[in-house]
Amino acid sequence: MLYLIGLGLSHETDITVRGLETVRKCKRVYLEAYTSILMAADKESLEKFYGKEVILADRELVEGGTDEILAGAEVDDIAFLVVGDVYGATTHTDLVLRAKEKGIKYEAIHNASVMNAVGASGLQLYQFGQTISLVFFTDSWKPDSFYSRIMENRKIGLHTLILLDIKVKEQSIENMARGRLIYEPPRYMNIATAAEQLLEIEEIRGEKAYTPNTPCIAVSRLGSPSQTFKAATLEELVNYDSGEPLHSLIMLGRQVHDLELEFLYQFCEDPVAFKKFVEEDQEYFKPPPYVPPPDDADDDL
Amino acid sequence: MLYLIGLGLSHETDITVRGLETVRKCKRVYLEAYTSILMAADKESLEKFYGKEVILADRELVEGGTDEILAGAEVDDIAFLVVGDVYGATTHTDLVLRAKEKGIKYEAIHNASVMNAVGASGLQLYQFGQTISLVFFTDSWKPDSFYSRIMENRKIGLHTLILLDIKVKEQSIENMARGRLIYEPPRYMNIATAAEQLLEIEEIRGEKAYTPNTPCIAVSRLGSPSQTFKAATLEELVNYDSGEPLHSLIMLGRQVHDLELEFLYQFCEDPVAFKKFVEEDQEYFKPPPYVPPPDDADDDL
Repeated sequence: MLYLIGLGLSHETDITVRGLETVRKCKRVYLEAYTSILMAADKESLEKFYGKEVILADRELVEGGTDEILAGAEVDDIAFLVVGDVYGATTHTDLVLRAKEKGIKYEAIHNASVMNAVGASGLQLYQFGQTISLVFFTDSWKPDSFYSRIMENRKIGLHTLILLDIKVKEQSIENMARGRLIYEPPRYMNIATAAEQLLEIEEIRGEKAYTPNTPCIAVSRLGSPSQTFKAATLEELVNYDSGEPLHSLIMLGRQVHDLELEFLYQFCEDPVAFKKFVEEDQEYFKPPPYVPPPDDADDDL
Repeated sequence: MLYLIGLGLSHETDITVRGLETVRKCKRVYLEAYTSILMAADKESLEKFYGKEVILADRELVEGGTDEILAGAEVDDIAFLVVGDVYGATTHTDLVLRAKEKGIKYEAIHNASVMNAVGASGLQLYQFGQTISLVFFTDSWKPDSFYSRIMENRKIGLHTLILLDIKVKEQSIENMARGRLIYEPPRYMNIATAAEQLLEIEEIRGEKAYTPNTPCIAVSRLGSPSQTFKAATLEELVNYDSGEPLHSLIMLGRQVHDLELEFLYQFCEDPVAFKKFVEEDQEYFKPPPYVPPPDDADDDL
């Protein structure tokens, strides 16, 4: 049996009771260690907590070594641990498909992920549109397909959750070219870089999907003891020191309710100024005023 | 201190280890008991598992009795348990705001909710648009504002998660009018009713936000031992017996990737027919073909 077990966001003890009981009975325990990190725990602390060896599964192993992970899973119990919830990345769905092909049963034990825990910002989850990912730009590579997706969300008034790049166990182009297995230190995008990159693309595209004054919520270390929210405009966030990783960013949509706004004020330096920016931003993509149908309309309702 | 603790989806043991440790040290433990239910547990089994009394908090208490819930929370630890994750409903955000007003500290201990666990369907979470709620229609009340929101999602190719109505501790209009505190048996919307209501509104509105042939995924008892997915068209789901609650429904958007589709086939009776319906449905809201800009375009990129 393959158990996919979500670890939640931060502590060893964020695993569910059922998840922990399952890990403890498994023969091998893999920890997916490249799409996210557990903020207040590491391999060693998890091993101590579980009383079991934990095998780090990097990209090569998860995407190329599914046979190794699934070996013996027809008879033994194998745990595959994922930070956040189980189905956060395409590769996890793929692992399940590979298990099914081999006739191996699987079960998911879910947990919190950034996708639902961002509700802690006070913004209602049902008002979010599609989620986007922002990767580290290089001089020659500035992928901007996210821009149209933010535009689509904001046109219909929805908030956008922006997931920020994480580079773990990456090789430099030079080391890759020379076949040297030397890895760069891990990098986690912070809020200032994200805000800069977003503004850079807005300047290039110029379609006003958002502006320097668009209100955002910086979400730092969600679910950890030092969790912090900061409500400010995109331009203000360029100078924001967001501290230790992990971070994500929410760009507000037009449909902000009073209760959401009231909740956000606790994260503002100047709630009056923030409210003004929200109201100004709501003028973008405002639907045209309602025009009643002509008298001779012959609807079937 | 006020602790808001997510319980996850089904079992007593779906609570996190940290959540359980926190519940056990709290002076009073409230269970929010009207926006959802825990499928494989009840008040008694939770009390046994926690070794503590659990106070059921109905709508009246949560929305009108926050003083009672928060009494003494300046000095004592109070737990407020929520099925799924903590910030699933507006009223929970409101409770936090009331706590803040009283100078009471709070902490959220997150868990899985339908909002992220639907990833188990194989559909990628970042491809979902806004979430909608479908309430039980009556002869005189058929609220259809969800229709425009589905249209908005599908126009940009996104999936829609549709949460189905739950009626717990509701009074009949007659009993309410007479002031009798007699409650109707709980009702949970099933997939067939949801599909019927969706088609009824499509027939009235007729704007083809979706059609009887639009592919959907019925999600039943998500996260419980009897979890079931069913991939079928809306029309087919009218005759689907989805069994015990809880249910929700996903309506597909145009942007279905091959990996998502491959995953869905395991939930189909006839994958070939389902694929055909998906392809046909992708013709709706298809963006116009790309036309290259004229030669004299003078972009700054």
